[in-house]
Amino acid sequence: MQHIEQYQKSFLNHLEGFTVHKEPKNLYNPINYILELGGKRLRPVLTLMTAEVFGVNAQTAMDAALSIEVFHNFSLVHDDIMDDAPLRRGEETVHEKWNLNTGILSGDAMLIMAYQLFENYEAETFQALAKLFSKTALEVCEGQQYDIDFETRDDVTIIEYLKMIEYKTAVLVGAAMKMGAIVAKASNEDQNSIYEFGRLLGIAFQLQDDYLDAFGNPETFGKQVGGDIIENKKTYLVLKTLESGSKETQSALKKLMSNSELSNENKVDKVKVLFTNSGSAEATQEAVKDYTNKAFKVLEGLNIPEDKKQLLRVFGEQLMTRRV
Amino acid sequence: MQHIEQYQKSFLNHLEGFTVHKEPKNLYNPINYILELGGKRLRPVLTLMTAEVFGVNAQTAMDAALSIEVFHNFSLVHDDIMDDAPLRRGEETVHEKWNLNTGILSGDAMLIMAYQLFENYEAETFQALAKLFSKTALEVCEGQQYDIDFETRDDVTIIEYLKMIEYKTAVLVGAAMKMGAIVAKASNEDQNSIYEFGRLLGIAFQLQDDYLDAFGNPETFGKQVGGDIIENKKTYLVLKTLESGSKETQSALKKLMSNSELSNENKVDKVKVLFTNSGSAEATQEAVKDYTNKAFKVLEGLNIPEDKKQLLRVFGEQLMTRRV
Repeated sequence: MQHIEQYQKSFLNHLEGFTVHKEPKNLYNPINYILELGGKRLRPVLTLMTAEVFGVNAQTAMDAALSIEVFHNFSLVHDDIMDDAPLRRGEETVHEKWNLNTGILSGDAMLIMAYQLFENYEAETFQALAKLFSKTALEVCEGQQYDIDFETRDDVTIIEYLKMIEYKTAVLVGAAMKMGAIVAKASNEDQNSIYEFGRLLGIAFQLQDDYLDAFGNPETFGKQVGGDIIENKKTYLVLKTLESGSKETQSALKKLMSNSELSNENKVDKVKVLFTNSGSAEATQEAVKDYTNKAFKVLEGLNIPEDKKQLLRVFGEQLMTRRV
Repeated sequence: MQHIEQYQKSFLNHLEGFTVHKEPKNLYNPINYILELGGKRLRPVLTLMTAEVFGVNAQTAMDAALSIEVFHNFSLVHDDIMDDAPLRRGEETVHEKWNLNTGILSGDAMLIMAYQLFENYEAETFQALAKLFSKTALEVCEGQQYDIDFETRDDVTIIEYLKMIEYKTAVLVGAAMKMGAIVAKASNEDQNSIYEFGRLLGIAFQLQDDYLDAFGNPETFGKQVGGDIIENKKTYLVLKTLESGSKETQSALKKLMSNSELSNENKVDKVKVLFTNSGSAEATQEAVKDYTNKAFKVLEGLNIPEDKKQLLRVFGEQLMTRRV
């Protein structure tokens, strides 16, 4: 088993070989661009790590890992259009650097190329990977649609929110790990358990993201702290406050969210006080722990040596205690 | 073997069962909408017909045929955004009826669902279908990119144009037929031949479309006759005139194409005279016959009974002598 940094390194090496030099350049250059923008490459690393946890060399899972990363970047390109986002990882988004049509078409090509990356696996493995991929990709689309729908709704429940982040974020983490297990020909039971581990960890990860967006350290958090508050996003913190805060707290939060005259700084500060005093900040951290512990519980039933379970546990803990 | 109308009917029956009643409605309703808009369903009919030509029941190929149709409609939804088209088959396009984001996301979901339609085939067939599908879908994206690139280029050659329509249109016709052959477990040689037949017929079909767009009967042609001329599209007629017309004809055509003061009717009439007098109109019809004959030539080598070859020939002739 290797360290995360080693998985990242060998993945980046494989990614480099994927650079497309074909015509038409206007289709493929944006794909090379977005794939080279960086990021932690967490999802493909999980695929590689899971393959080794189940006893095969990470190299075997390299194309599956790349497929996950290409799909993830496809979804970023199209989501950035839908969110009208000018920047991604501090650089211009594809539709900004080129144009809308390029963003749509290059994204489409990436989705297809993600499927092509399974073609080197033999038929049974190919089918298992592609089926899981399709199911997951469709759920990611559904999650994105729920996210869009929630923007204009005032009655989003926490249960609905959890389903949205599960679809939009967590199922891809589960699928990334299950693909490692599929390539390693793990038993169906183990495949389903590792998917469940990833899915639960993915939900914890997103809830942690919600928390850090408000309470993270501005010096180490990658994005603007308070960004969600400024955009009035209905995060777990907001929904929890609206659900279990006092009547006064609820109406204070609603007022702040519809107030467009307040300075961003002032608004962020005031909203954070409500998150803290209502107990929602703490409740969010509790939920993160809760989902992480549920994920660890699933690990117990896996048919792998204890040292490998420990490795997955350490990875999960690192993810959840992150401040960035 | 059935008549085309019967294939259409049984396909429409299968399509009806595909209607998605799932949540989120804003994702799936646009998919149901575009799939129910109509059209001749030529591509799926070709899949069904080919399956029977190679000796299996059309029902076996139904999901593959549906996949082709879902993909075709995905490409229409995204192309309509890129072309800023308000209407499709006389009805509002998806991004007009809903919005840009819905057009993008519902299109994405359709591309994924097209792959899912292969899941009921056993692993080897699944892999063969999905591989062909990915290759074809990526070529369609490349064709669309070339088409976009050509809009702002003044030096497009006929060879480049033929490659563009091959990718954007013809490979999907080839793939539709090859899928029928794959499902019927035809030999690799026959699979490749029927693909070639479809590809050549697809090129002929598109060239015929170019011709009819200018010279079709306004009363029976589905679209506005002269639409390509009004939009200054670099069709085969235009490129042929610019390549082999006299110096005077060439500059007259260029002038007309950059003249924005002429009425549409006047412009269409004048350009058509140039197409006719330069011999480009006739050359286009010659090219249609040429590709059709090449396609028929490929049929000869197929390992199927003569009556089935005859059936494909009749179908090809119907397609090419159409006036609509």
